[in-house]
Amino acid sequence: MLQAALAGGTAGRRSVFELFGRRLPEGRRYGVVAGVGRALDAVEEFRFDDEALAALEGVVDDATVAWLADYEFTGDIWGYAEGDAYFAHSPLLIVEASFAEAVVLETVLLSIYNHDSAIASAASRMTLMAGDRPCIEMGSRRTHEEAAVAAARAAYVAGFANTSNLAARQRYGVPTAGTSAHSFTLLHDSEEEAFRAQVSSLGRGTTLLVDTYDVAEAVRLGVEVAGPELGAVRIDSGDLGVLAHQVRQQLDDLGATRTRIVVTSDLDEYAIAALASAPVDGYGVGTQLVTGSGHPTSGFVYKLVAREDADGELQSVAKKSVDKISVGGRKYALRRRDPDGVAEAEVVGIGTPGRNDGDDRELLVPLVRDGRVVGRETLDAARQRHLDARAELPLEVRSMSKGDPAIPTVFEGV
Amino acid sequence: MLQAALAGGTAGRRSVFELFGRRLPEGRRYGVVAGVGRALDAVEEFRFDDEALAALEGVVDDATVAWLADYEFTGDIWGYAEGDAYFAHSPLLIVEASFAEAVVLETVLLSIYNHDSAIASAASRMTLMAGDRPCIEMGSRRTHEEAAVAAARAAYVAGFANTSNLAARQRYGVPTAGTSAHSFTLLHDSEEEAFRAQVSSLGRGTTLLVDTYDVAEAVRLGVEVAGPELGAVRIDSGDLGVLAHQVRQQLDDLGATRTRIVVTSDLDEYAIAALASAPVDGYGVGTQLVTGSGHPTSGFVYKLVAREDADGELQSVAKKSVDKISVGGRKYALRRRDPDGVAEAEVVGIGTPGRNDGDDRELLVPLVRDGRVVGRETLDAARQRHLDARAELPLEVRSMSKGDPAIPTVFEGV
Repeated sequence: MLQAALAGGTAGRRSVFELFGRRLPEGRRYGVVAGVGRALDAVEEFRFDDEALAALEGVVDDATVAWLADYEFTGDIWGYAEGDAYFAHSPLLIVEASFAEAVVLETVLLSIYNHDSAIASAASRMTLMAGDRPCIEMGSRRTHEEAAVAAARAAYVAGFANTSNLAARQRYGVPTAGTSAHSFTLLHDSEEEAFRAQVSSLGRGTTLLVDTYDVAEAVRLGVEVAGPELGAVRIDSGDLGVLAHQVRQQLDDLGATRTRIVVTSDLDEYAIAALASAPVDGYGVGTQLVTGSGHPTSGFVYKLVAREDADGELQSVAKKSVDKISVGGRKYALRRRDPDGVAEAEVVGIGTPGRNDGDDRELLVPLVRDGRVVGRETLDAARQRHLDARAELPLEVRSMSKGDPAIPTVFEGV
Repeated sequence: MLQAALAGGTAGRRSVFELFGRRLPEGRRYGVVAGVGRALDAVEEFRFDDEALAALEGVVDDATVAWLADYEFTGDIWGYAEGDAYFAHSPLLIVEASFAEAVVLETVLLSIYNHDSAIASAASRMTLMAGDRPCIEMGSRRTHEEAAVAAARAAYVAGFANTSNLAARQRYGVPTAGTSAHSFTLLHDSEEEAFRAQVSSLGRGTTLLVDTYDVAEAVRLGVEVAGPELGAVRIDSGDLGVLAHQVRQQLDDLGATRTRIVVTSDLDEYAIAALASAPVDGYGVGTQLVTGSGHPTSGFVYKLVAREDADGELQSVAKKSVDKISVGGRKYALRRRDPDGVAEAEVVGIGTPGRNDGDDRELLVPLVRDGRVVGRETLDAARQRHLDARAELPLEVRSMSKGDPAIPTVFEGV
């Protein structure tokens, strides 16, 4: 595409691309935007080094290789801020640049948004169901090793307390938490030796895994070894609800009333909800988080919605389509709210917003201006935004059953 | 775990870890091992640089940081060769080293195997249904940007012809194929200008996307612009079966009898199977490939199965479990075949294989010896192995309906 556009003289046409999803994943009430910070890093670092250029020989012509050698994004990008909610047709990113500059960003932008938002959207439902109890991200081993780092980051944006992924700490400052595995217990000649080694090295506040052999015996042993100051016990198998009640009772009887109970074992938002009445103090979530709990990708697309014509005039463009709503032109987006601040609609229009009676919230923020990143922020700012944006949605987002989006998307003046 | 084991004096115990899945993904008849080559690269490169070590301060104690600074794997690894089939409890990797050296590889090995094998397992069903027609990997945009590269590699192992991911070409030599998007057509003032630009730059053998406006008109125009030598047309929406028949007829009527028809649009193995009788010449597969067609992870675990005791004797160990088969000890694995060479069973045992009447195939190959990689091979060797291993399985692997594994796993002498 790039080669043909360069050769044909259309590569320089000012173009507007939009990144959006046509619908939420089936049955979901809302989605969560994540990956914005990673996307800004990717745009900034998007360059072709000698090795990459050499690999393109034989794929594209010399003129294209030469153009890519000088590549640097010089356009503008607006988008939803990280952590915000999104709905069908929310214009999550608007990229305005020459066709050539904007089109080569397509795959990396979609990859980041499709992945990170899928994880954050699943994570948000989990933290919503967990309420005040912390969720711990433990899914690195069940996804690609680099996706794992991004997943830990996205989960944190959506309210997870911490992660077991140390690279996420190194790169993004996500708080980390460790755990011990069955292999640690099995390494030792007895469970008692394992517990003594762990408590001796990590202190009484550590979390002991108590289901390698017999849960009740391990809990008894754990309190014997660490005393009632034992930080937590982790249960990773069996009927977690029943076990949590039994273990709580046993801990209380042993005087370890402040020892917490952490449960793990293929948890998802439904399992977390089902454990709401059990005496559980934290949830470790792995596979279902990093695979988006049934929706491992967000289905976002990146579409050309406007471009200059031969006369230099910006024209809306759209694929002819019977089954897809394609709306051309540069968008605006508002979250319409009632006077109590509860979201009522996702309002999308072309051009400049019409009425805004003060309750509406503008959703698009500048992210890149003339090629320079202007939308960078801390991960904690995104995390706080997510909590605020979720709190603004109608109560039905708490429903874990499949249903319609929490608010409709309304096209204004289209 | 590492810190406590180092402090407690058990970190150096010779240990055997095994990577395996307890079951195939629901309803699947076989799985495909992929990621072996990537895992070998990862083991070789597994080091902690100053930045990583600095990030671990406050997470682990100084002794652990010092130990990690010198980390280098010096043990042995055996495993299934890349591209081979696997079943429940197949010992895909056997890692023998000190506990400390082996346990720190857990996450990276699981991440690579869980991801790459999930993709290859889905890809193999797709290429099986596609038969002689090529499958083109086009899913990069629907998964994490690095997972995308690994997915393209895994798909190639499982028989895909090529990928749109240029990084997979650069890193692994996977053949690439391009395509043009609707945005390319929309960039131009008319479809004719778009087609002329593409054919002029890329030659008559290019693939024109014909569903931006009206398919029949675009096909007519494409042949007018490129002549009957037009390489292919791509259809990305609508009823692909019906459209393929119509377009084939139209192309033949226009004399473009050798112009191929490539279809795309959320294809999976079922959609490919349903198009078997349509005049389709190639399948472009995206989302469903990179998300493992319903099974984005393989569910592999990495378990300690044996370790030295205080007397230096290797002891089998296993978590007590009611619902999981945990078999301790160092394994062997054979694919038992009948005299016609058709697989009958996955035979897993401890120690040295008993009978092998000549029809059985040994499945474990040396991958790392004394820390040195010995199992490296070309991607094409893995690809050929996959074709051979799949051909060896009973015919029922062709069934796309959910069912039992194609062959049972038999534990010998356990």
